[in-house]
Amino acid sequence: MRIFIIKSSTAHTAFDYSIKDIPGTSGRLDLICRSLNAAFQLSHSFRKNVRVYTVLYGPPDPPKTIRFEGAKIKPKTLNPDEVSTAKLIGKILNAGKDIKEPTKEREVLPGIYISRMTFEDVVRKNIKYNLYLLEENGVDIEKVKFPQDNVGFILGDQNGFTEEELNFLEGLVPKITIGPKPYLTSHVIAFVNIYLDRIGIP
Amino acid sequence: MRIFIIKSSTAHTAFDYSIKDIPGTSGRLDLICRSLNAAFQLSHSFRKNVRVYTVLYGPPDPPKTIRFEGAKIKPKTLNPDEVSTAKLIGKILNAGKDIKEPTKEREVLPGIYISRMTFEDVVRKNIKYNLYLLEENGVDIEKVKFPQDNVGFILGDQNGFTEEELNFLEGLVPKITIGPKPYLTSHVIAFVNIYLDRIGIP
Repeated sequence: MRIFIIKSSTAHTAFDYSIKDIPGTSGRLDLICRSLNAAFQLSHSFRKNVRVYTVLYGPPDPPKTIRFEGAKIKPKTLNPDEVSTAKLIGKILNAGKDIKEPTKEREVLPGIYISRMTFEDVVRKNIKYNLYLLEENGVDIEKVKFPQDNVGFILGDQNGFTEEELNFLEGLVPKITIGPKPYLTSHVIAFVNIYLDRIGIP
Repeated sequence: MRIFIIKSSTAHTAFDYSIKDIPGTSGRLDLICRSLNAAFQLSHSFRKNVRVYTVLYGPPDPPKTIRFEGAKIKPKTLNPDEVSTAKLIGKILNAGKDIKEPTKEREVLPGIYISRMTFEDVVRKNIKYNLYLLEENGVDIEKVKFPQDNVGFILGDQNGFTEEELNFLEGLVPKITIGPKPYLTSHVIAFVNIYLDRIGIP
């Protein structure tokens, strides 16, 4: 299985944004929508072996974590385009409004869960898998020997990670890099998925 | 310079679609919007060494070809999100409504041109560069020795290419493949851009 943990420091944690202007009103939820596209979509099919956590820290009620479980999501739930994904996330946020418990997940749709988990909660929960931090100035991806069973990647948004988050990850998760330029999160995910296909990692 | 020639068999050739439902009303112009994102966008910057042709064959007035010249496009013209790009393409299509000449380009915005060029016209015009067809079952990209000056890629949409188009390209343009699965056009472009960065092709 492939896991992608995507942290957004700005994406809104309630459906208070306008679908007509997603980048301008949602704290760049468009980035999360494109990242879901890159994680799951193939031409005329869907990657069932993918799990995505989107960890949202924008206003008004952070954090909110949404887990997408490729193996359980029903067809036509998650589509390639940004607008329908932003609407879907809005519905999920609405359904998670009243959650009180700090780490318990609520299943909103088959394979889609919302919780109040923090970024640290999500990393700790998945640390038993083989996690890597995708950031600039890490070890080149070609030098990494990936395991055949489970592999996970942690990615930031347009603002990257805070000093505190980087300190938490340091020593816990190796830092790797896919290329010499600063790439969009969704492009990194698209590249990693195809790279793993090429080297035969399931 | 890097060139991407993207052919859509369905994307509309007039601004007759709804921004509220791009995939459902525009003949999958969302795919073209994501491809432009993949071709040009870096984190907090823009690839100036990229040229994109989108060759649109959808109703009501095909073909329409839009050329995006990275070196000349002004900042904030082309943004990462699908909705603003679909609106921009709508404006360009409106500005090219009355074009009569079969191959003459009209500059609509700095670095953005519309014409009635066909897919064959665009390929022939760029054949002096080093073009490759990105399709399934081609030579693996790692086996290709790319030139250092100009390199171009031809990509299809959700329907791929017609028999006629493939016959035209056969023998003219080598066919290459990036991985073992059928990928979305935008993911292929993201992968190719990062792959070329990695091997030091400008």
